[in-house]
Amino acid sequence: MTAALPARSLGHHNINPHIKAAKYAVRGELAVRSEEYRARLAKVEGNHIAAGLPFKEVISANIGNPQQLDQKPITFFRQVLSLLENPALLDHPDVLKSTFGYKSDVVERARWLLKNVGSVGAYSASNGAPAIRQHIADFLEHRDGFPANEADIYLSAGASSGVNTLLHIICAGPHTGVLVPIPQYPLYTASLSVLNAQCVPYYLDEKKNWATDLDAIRASLTEARAAGTDVRAIVVINPGNPTGASLSEADVAAVIELARAEKLVILADEVYQTNVFEGQFHSFKAGLRQLQKQNPDGKYGHVELASLHSVSKGMVGECGHRGGYFELVGFDPDVQAEIYKFVSITLCAPVIGQCLVELMVNPPKPGDPSFELYDKEYHSIFDGLRERAVALHRAFDQMEGVECGAPQGSMYLFPTIKVPAKAAEAAAAEGRTADEFYCLKMLEATGVCVVPGSGFGQAPGTLHFRTTFLAPGTEWVGNLVKFHKDFMEQYK
Amino acid sequence: MTAALPARSLGHHNINPHIKAAKYAVRGELAVRSEEYRARLAKVEGNHIAAGLPFKEVISANIGNPQQLDQKPITFFRQVLSLLENPALLDHPDVLKSTFGYKSDVVERARWLLKNVGSVGAYSASNGAPAIRQHIADFLEHRDGFPANEADIYLSAGASSGVNTLLHIICAGPHTGVLVPIPQYPLYTASLSVLNAQCVPYYLDEKKNWATDLDAIRASLTEARAAGTDVRAIVVINPGNPTGASLSEADVAAVIELARAEKLVILADEVYQTNVFEGQFHSFKAGLRQLQKQNPDGKYGHVELASLHSVSKGMVGECGHRGGYFELVGFDPDVQAEIYKFVSITLCAPVIGQCLVELMVNPPKPGDPSFELYDKEYHSIFDGLRERAVALHRAFDQMEGVECGAPQGSMYLFPTIKVPAKAAEAAAAEGRTADEFYCLKMLEATGVCVVPGSGFGQAPGTLHFRTTFLAPGTEWVGNLVKFHKDFMEQYK
Repeated sequence: MTAALPARSLGHHNINPHIKAAKYAVRGELAVRSEEYRARLAKVEGNHIAAGLPFKEVISANIGNPQQLDQKPITFFRQVLSLLENPALLDHPDVLKSTFGYKSDVVERARWLLKNVGSVGAYSASNGAPAIRQHIADFLEHRDGFPANEADIYLSAGASSGVNTLLHIICAGPHTGVLVPIPQYPLYTASLSVLNAQCVPYYLDEKKNWATDLDAIRASLTEARAAGTDVRAIVVINPGNPTGASLSEADVAAVIELARAEKLVILADEVYQTNVFEGQFHSFKAGLRQLQKQNPDGKYGHVELASLHSVSKGMVGECGHRGGYFELVGFDPDVQAEIYKFVSITLCAPVIGQCLVELMVNPPKPGDPSFELYDKEYHSIFDGLRERAVALHRAFDQMEGVECGAPQGSMYLFPTIKVPAKAAEAAAAEGRTADEFYCLKMLEATGVCVVPGSGFGQAPGTLHFRTTFLAPGTEWVGNLVKFHKDFMEQYK
Repeated sequence: MTAALPARSLGHHNINPHIKAAKYAVRGELAVRSEEYRARLAKVEGNHIAAGLPFKEVISANIGNPQQLDQKPITFFRQVLSLLENPALLDHPDVLKSTFGYKSDVVERARWLLKNVGSVGAYSASNGAPAIRQHIADFLEHRDGFPANEADIYLSAGASSGVNTLLHIICAGPHTGVLVPIPQYPLYTASLSVLNAQCVPYYLDEKKNWATDLDAIRASLTEARAAGTDVRAIVVINPGNPTGASLSEADVAAVIELARAEKLVILADEVYQTNVFEGQFHSFKAGLRQLQKQNPDGKYGHVELASLHSVSKGMVGECGHRGGYFELVGFDPDVQAEIYKFVSITLCAPVIGQCLVELMVNPPKPGDPSFELYDKEYHSIFDGLRERAVALHRAFDQMEGVECGAPQGSMYLFPTIKVPAKAAEAAAAEGRTADEFYCLKMLEATGVCVVPGSGFGQAPGTLHFRTTFLAPGTEWVGNLVKFHKDFMEQYK
């Protein structure tokens, strides 16, 4: 029947080839299959025998989505948002007297936002509500010890949308190149594919717990430029995704020095800035301002930095609200005007997400009525994440052929795996990479969905997978240990 | 000082030329200037003499942003959203007993959404929460009288993001062309510029109150194809933006017939589907299914339709929440798979906005506890919009050299203006088009910000402006009448 119909206008052969070329494994084949398993289990109310599956639940360890798993939202944040959605509550004489838990600072903040932002149902300015931008600037000034300007801040729908904006501006054609760490969060390679620009990969140093390796960056840059690529920018993800690495102050300064010498815009993806378990977070903004202060001759005056943050990660974990921002430092005002126009085309970031950014950068302070609960919730989430990371790391330590550095930050572990030759052959026979094959077998045996290292990039001849450590409980970790043992046994 | 610094990596000369080429007048120079006036007035608390301005307030009639002006959110919607943000209220024994106004259907809907969607702080599936997609399908089935499939529905961050996705897929290179009505909402021309694809303009028929003109479409298509453009799609905005036109059933069928014969994907922008004052809304989906039913030989079987809707317009008016969806009909499954991957790269549409889509497509029904208030609010907004449209139209009728069709739909009027030759000369002397000049003088004299017709496109030799009829009160309308008289006097 179908064959007799006239052809459609669009087919796989003639749509945008750059979208076809893009890869995004975090929500790829394994993720789709895990959702099928989840639906199959839901239909029989978790009766896995009826579902024909060897596990009772699917664990989505493929994506940093805290509230899908166990993480509870922070009460103060959500109380304020509920008043913004239903401002009629604010006019009610009993809002503070009721036992609904609204404290005076919750009510005050909601009133302040409604006065300064207006209805959350109205478009804001294209770059975000001015009052919230000012509070972000205040937060950055407090965090870094250097002034920040609200006019250089752009609210975005999560950090992803900010990255999309920045790469759109930077990429002028197929010869533009952007240095991207390998392994990386595939947003970068996918966006560069869609824009038909060049991803210039540089390898992180696994032996130094995935720190930046200046020699590797320089080698990639030189090679790409020799091949005619106009390399204009360098992406740094700190703390790392998928690696969890947390860069030292010296590492940050070294990247800035390279960017200065080589005229590269720095795109600093700092969405995990509060997910740091070892040492502390060093922002690129502070690093750059420090170097500028130490070099009053203007040596670092022209360095261009865009740093991104988000409400999706950290102890906020509000991915679904799509809130985020980026700050520009050293950008040409004419370029900023084009960025403003570009973000105007899609009008503005979600306003309730913008309000959540305000709450993230300006949480309750000691002495505020909501502080005690906020502080307790914040630290309980932080400690819980660290405990799970440590437990998962300990499990990897028990596995033959698995190596994994100690958890430093972000929400991920990225172990190296060594699989027997027979497993690699079985994978090849299915047309899969060995890490894909391993992760698929893991999903089929345990219901745990992780992402193969090939989805992020990895040095040739190495195999990895990325798992979040967000899922609660220890049963799934035990299942991983057992699966790995069985897998190694089966293919030995 | 600056000259001595080394050059930056990015300047206006080397950034993405396609973004530089994009135009988006809705938030262009006039809008920016109006915000400066607003800020100047705010500083002196509205004392316009201290601000050196001849008006007391800025009226943003440049953008369809109902809640920025006067429109109040619908109570049922916001009550449900407040419970989604603060689910702790649901566990409170007094939530229904309190005087806070939560009725049982509000509580039930919130519980249903939390059960089926999960936390609004978690990412949903890339194409949106399945349960909400199912309810959209049910709504479409009820609206059109033909089945709809949840797998063909994609939630988006407002309709703008849906348009961006669809044009990304359709545009394969600089030779791809898309038919766009002139005048049009500039999202289309701007997005095609950014994608470096061809906008193939077709003029709407002002004499027939801006209906589609099949001869004009065919002429544009033939000319573009003769010039080597691979024209693949046609955009129809119904009800029209900026024109307010509401297409007849025959007009809709004629476009579908053309799309069938010429193998064009139809992009039906139907975000104003409930803003119809004359006649009724005819969806492209119903029109297509009707033709398919009448032609069981499969003559219309291959027609591809993407229709878009949004929570931003209608009586919902929740622009800031960035909620919307599109439905695909007749698309190749392989193309749909690429759309799914593309939307995955930015993870998902804002989840609270998705929940608002659910409430829009599934509002309280007669007999439900919230129905009476919902119905009253809905009709009061509708009637208010119609009254304002009629009052503004009456004012235009009084103006010499201004012609405007009766309001039919959407949120806009788009009058033709004829300005004296001296005004055109004065505009040219400033390097402006005559409509830009007129609108700028209007802003300077009255504080009313509208958008020149050139921002939407207009037939050569004609001049227009677009104004929303959202602003309350009659004073601003009177100011427009006076401004126009003075302007005509000054340049006669």
